[in-house]
Amino acid sequence: MAKFTTPHGTVTTPMFMPVGTQGTVKGISPQELLEIGSQMILGNTYHLMLRPGEQLVAAHGGLPGFTAYPGPFLTDSGGFQVMSLGHMRKISEQGVVFKSHLDGSLVELTPERSIEVQQALGADVIMAFDECPPFPAEREYITRSLERTVRWLERCMTFKSREDQALFAIVQGGIHPDLRQQSLDLTLPFATPGFAIGGLAVGESKEEMYPAVEFTTARLPTDKPRYLMGVGHPEDLVAGIALGVDMFDCVYPTRTGRFGYALTDDGRLNMNSSAPRRDLRPIDEDCDCYACRHYTRAYLAHLVRAEELLAPRMLSLHNLRYLHRLVERARAAISAQTFDVWAREWGQRYFRGELPQWFAASLDASSARQTPVPTSISSRG
Amino acid sequence: MAKFTTPHGTVTTPMFMPVGTQGTVKGISPQELLEIGSQMILGNTYHLMLRPGEQLVAAHGGLPGFTAYPGPFLTDSGGFQVMSLGHMRKISEQGVVFKSHLDGSLVELTPERSIEVQQALGADVIMAFDECPPFPAEREYITRSLERTVRWLERCMTFKSREDQALFAIVQGGIHPDLRQQSLDLTLPFATPGFAIGGLAVGESKEEMYPAVEFTTARLPTDKPRYLMGVGHPEDLVAGIALGVDMFDCVYPTRTGRFGYALTDDGRLNMNSSAPRRDLRPIDEDCDCYACRHYTRAYLAHLVRAEELLAPRMLSLHNLRYLHRLVERARAAISAQTFDVWAREWGQRYFRGELPQWFAASLDASSARQTPVPTSISSRG
Repeated sequence: MAKFTTPHGTVTTPMFMPVGTQGTVKGISPQELLEIGSQMILGNTYHLMLRPGEQLVAAHGGLPGFTAYPGPFLTDSGGFQVMSLGHMRKISEQGVVFKSHLDGSLVELTPERSIEVQQALGADVIMAFDECPPFPAEREYITRSLERTVRWLERCMTFKSREDQALFAIVQGGIHPDLRQQSLDLTLPFATPGFAIGGLAVGESKEEMYPAVEFTTARLPTDKPRYLMGVGHPEDLVAGIALGVDMFDCVYPTRTGRFGYALTDDGRLNMNSSAPRRDLRPIDEDCDCYACRHYTRAYLAHLVRAEELLAPRMLSLHNLRYLHRLVERARAAISAQTFDVWAREWGQRYFRGELPQWFAASLDASSARQTPVPTSISSRG
Repeated sequence: MAKFTTPHGTVTTPMFMPVGTQGTVKGISPQELLEIGSQMILGNTYHLMLRPGEQLVAAHGGLPGFTAYPGPFLTDSGGFQVMSLGHMRKISEQGVVFKSHLDGSLVELTPERSIEVQQALGADVIMAFDECPPFPAEREYITRSLERTVRWLERCMTFKSREDQALFAIVQGGIHPDLRQQSLDLTLPFATPGFAIGGLAVGESKEEMYPAVEFTTARLPTDKPRYLMGVGHPEDLVAGIALGVDMFDCVYPTRTGRFGYALTDDGRLNMNSSAPRRDLRPIDEDCDCYACRHYTRAYLAHLVRAEELLAPRMLSLHNLRYLHRLVERARAAISAQTFDVWAREWGQRYFRGELPQWFAASLDASSARQTPVPTSISSRG
C-alpha cells in the first residue's frame, strides 16, 4: 500500500482505474466517480486522437477540463488499441501506420506522436508507446518486439518535454520468464517513475498469466507503482494485489453492467435472468452505491428487461463501486496485516469453496513474501 | 399560480411533469430530478400494468418505493396508450380489449381495472379512464366518445376506494367548441379535485389546438388544477400558462435529448451538427444544470457523435431543467404581475422576432383576462 502524488491529487494504491475510453466513463458522471471512490481515470490516446482530436482536448486545458473529472488521469499510448482496432496495420521501426476504424483514413502513430498526443491530453501519468504482441506469438517475434519496445521507450523519453507528466515504461515478454527477464533487464535502467506489466490478458489462460505477473512484480522496484494493464475482474484484483500489483484498469465493470450483470462477493448476478425479478433485496446489502441504497433487484431487473437507460447506468455504477470497495477492503487488510486471511475468505465465498489453482498459487506466493511496505511516490517525471 | 397539496408533498403550479413511462424518467436518477426542480412525475398505467405488473410495484409500497422518487406521482389511466400502442383494439361500453405490444397477449382495460391498477401503483393523482379519439375524427364519433367517457368517469368514481388519491376527470370534445362545452357540461358536475384537458396534441395544428385550450380553461374552475395532457414543448408551456394551464407533461425533453437536441431560449440546439463541435461555451450560460455547469458544447457534441451513454443523459437532464426553469420564470413573472411582458419577450427571442399567430393569440387572450389568483388545493379525493 502506498501514496502516489500527482499534479491533480494524491492517490492510494493498490487502486482500480475506471476506463474513460472516449473521454467519459460510459454512463457515469464525474461527480459519481468521486462519490464512489474513483481515484484516477484512464483515457485512450487512440480514440481521443481520432475523435475529437487531441487539440480540442488541449483547448479545454486537457482531460480534466474536457471531461470535468477534476482528479488525476492516466492515458495509454495508443499502441495496444492500434493493434486491436486499427485496420491494415503496418508496423516498422518508425512506428505503426493504420486505417482509422472511424473513417478509414491512414494514420501514423510513432513514439514521438504518441507522446505529443498524450502531452496535449495532459494526463498525470502517460505511457510509453509499446508493441503488444498478440497471443499466441512466436518467441522470436516477442523478442524482436520487446527490444523494439525498449528503443521506442528511449524515443518517448527523448521527445517528452512536459515536466508535470510521469512517463511509465511497459515491460513485455509474454508468458515466458526468460523473455520477461530480458525485457526487465533492458527496461529497468530507464528508472521511469512507474512500470507497467504489458502483454498480458490478451487471450492466454489465467494459469499462464499469473506466473508471468508474479515473475515480473517480484523483479520490479517496490518503491514505484506496478501497473497491470487491462486487467480487472474481481478475482484478478485480489490475486494481483497478492502479487504486488498497485494499479489496474479494465472496461469489465462498465461493460458487464451494460450487459445486465452485477458484481458481488458471491459472483456475478445476472439481472437478465428471472431470479431477481421478484427479489426485493438490493444487489448487495453491504454496498453503499446509489443503486444499492435506493433500488431492489426487482426494480433493476425491470429496467434491464425494459431496456431503460438507467439500467446500464446503475449497474455500471454499482460494479465500479464494487471494485473500488474491493480494493479498499484489500488495503484495509494490508494495513491490518490480515491480507492473506481476508483474500482466502473472499475467494472461498466468490468461488463457492473451490479456489482455482492460479488464485491459490497467487495467494501462496503472497504469503511467502513479506507484506508490501507503504511507500510514497511522486509522479513528477 | 397555486400550491397543490398531495400525500407526498406540496407542489407549486404551473408545473411541468417529467414522464417516467416505465417507472423511470429515461436516464435520470431520482436525486437528479429533485435537484433540477421536478415536482411530480408521471407514470404510465398501460406500460406498468403490462411490465412489471402493478402487483410488483405495490409490493414496493407503490411508485415512490419502486422508483426511489420520494415525491408526488401522477398516473394516467392507460386509455390513451391503449389507443396508440395496443394492437387489435376493441372498444365497447365495457372497456377496451387489446393485444399487448410486448407479447401479444389479450388484455382488457376497463374503468374499474384502470382504477384498480392505479390504486396499486399508488400515485397521488390518478386519471379517469377515458377514450381519446384520434385526429381527425367524425363529430358523431367524438360526441359518442365524450358521452361514454363521462359514463366511464362515473364508474371510476364508484370503483375508487383509496381516499389518499385524487381522481381527475378528463374533458374531451376535440377541437370543436360545442363538443367541448358538452363535455364540460357533463363533466363539471362530478366536481373532481382537478380537471384534465384531453384529446389534444394528437395531430391537429397548433392553430386548431390553442383555441380549444383557451375555450376549455376559460370554463374550468380556477380553484382546481387544469392539466393539459401530453403537451410540453417550451412554446406550449408559455402559451398554455397564458391560457391558465397549471400542469403539463411530455416526453419531449427526454426524447429530443436522446436524439441530440438541447433546449434553449434561442430555440433547439442541434448537437449532431458541426456548429457546436469547437464551441467552448456551455449549452446555456444561464442554466444551472450539471451539464451546463460542467461541460462545453464541444464536449457534449463529442459525446453525441461518439454515441456515449452520457450524451442522452446530460441532454435529457438539461432539457428537463430548461422546462422546469421556464416554468419557474413564468411563475416569478406571474407573481410580479409581469407575465405578459415576460412571455412576449421570451417569444420574440425564441421565435426570432416572428410570433406565430397561435402564440400571439394565446398571449392576447391572457392579457384580456385577469391574472390567475393564487389558490391552495388539496389532492385528497
